[in-house]
Amino acid sequence: MALALDPAAQDLLFREAHTANTFTDEPVTDEQIQAVYDLVKFAPTAFNQSPLRVTLVRSREARERLVKYAMGANGDKTLSAPLTAVLSVDLDFHEKLPELFPHAPGIKDAYFSEATSREAAGTQNATLQAGYFILGVRAAGLAAGPMTGFDFAGINEKFFGDGKQKAFLVINIGKPGDDAFFPRSPRLAFEDAVATV
Amino acid sequence: MALALDPAAQDLLFREAHTANTFTDEPVTDEQIQAVYDLVKFAPTAFNQSPLRVTLVRSREARERLVKYAMGANGDKTLSAPLTAVLSVDLDFHEKLPELFPHAPGIKDAYFSEATSREAAGTQNATLQAGYFILGVRAAGLAAGPMTGFDFAGINEKFFGDGKQKAFLVINIGKPGDDAFFPRSPRLAFEDAVATV
Repeated sequence: MALALDPAAQDLLFREAHTANTFTDEPVTDEQIQAVYDLVKFAPTAFNQSPLRVTLVRSREARERLVKYAMGANGDKTLSAPLTAVLSVDLDFHEKLPELFPHAPGIKDAYFSEATSREAAGTQNATLQAGYFILGVRAAGLAAGPMTGFDFAGINEKFFGDGKQKAFLVINIGKPGDDAFFPRSPRLAFEDAVATV
Repeated sequence: MALALDPAAQDLLFREAHTANTFTDEPVTDEQIQAVYDLVKFAPTAFNQSPLRVTLVRSREARERLVKYAMGANGDKTLSAPLTAVLSVDLDFHEKLPELFPHAPGIKDAYFSEATSREAAGTQNATLQAGYFILGVRAAGLAAGPMTGFDFAGINEKFFGDGKQKAFLVINIGKPGDDAFFPRSPRLAFEDAVATV
């Protein structure tokens, strides 16, 4: 009983959830994605910078554009999913900081005036948010299929032509289809991942 | 009712949880951290690479060593917490891939023989795992206080002298103390963070 989270929620988010490789035709609604966003938006980022942007690739035409940049089996997986999300960093996230961190509006210029440090912080915090988002998809009773095997430079050019967003992860979302899951691979033992000093 | 996760779990992990800046003296046990790890270890990483390593800084002596690298108020926050975790990337995570991804042991050499690509993938995936870990701390009924305001190069030298681990986040863990929370800052509206194509 070391956890406060109830066992059904543990199973839904972690123990019984698996990365899905096939999906049914059942649609994923905008309402479901909004509920996911309205949940995971509360998880923390540094200075509340919230740099993650999500592009829902819903139309068949847009999905066919996207899979031109897929590697290996990721194209077929993506076409089989009812919805695909491209996760990206807003490289100009600092413009929203005075609104997002109102008790210290000077943070914007003090820490984020340079594009290089902004991209580093934005990438780190958007990646944290990607972890939250994957669990949020599961919280909606859906399966996520996150993939890094894409030509992200190509996606950036085709989908974010203004150069203000940098894609880093593509996630298929839906109800798992036939043979959707690989067998669970082993995880590192506690002793191999956690040390005490 | 767009979410399958029950409302109490939504509150525990996201809605009612806040980054804590002060902590009570109540200890955080090894059993609690093991329960957190044994939950969040199931969340996905690319090729199950699982590059996150967690160093629990528990003794007063080790905590005083750590806060030498803290910026601003992070040192006092850290000394006030019963437990602090340094999150790092194992830059040699590929050595464990044949065990972690047994159905395709060739991945280790095909994708991860070069230190540069290994560090990029390891950093991205360890950061996803950091997101899972923060929510796992909350799943244990504890508050997390994640911080990036540390001299990580100094931490690496002092705590990971062999150069095989790269620290990127420090998280205070415990029960929230007096005035532990800032007021909730605004989050981006759905329309400002999510687009559809």
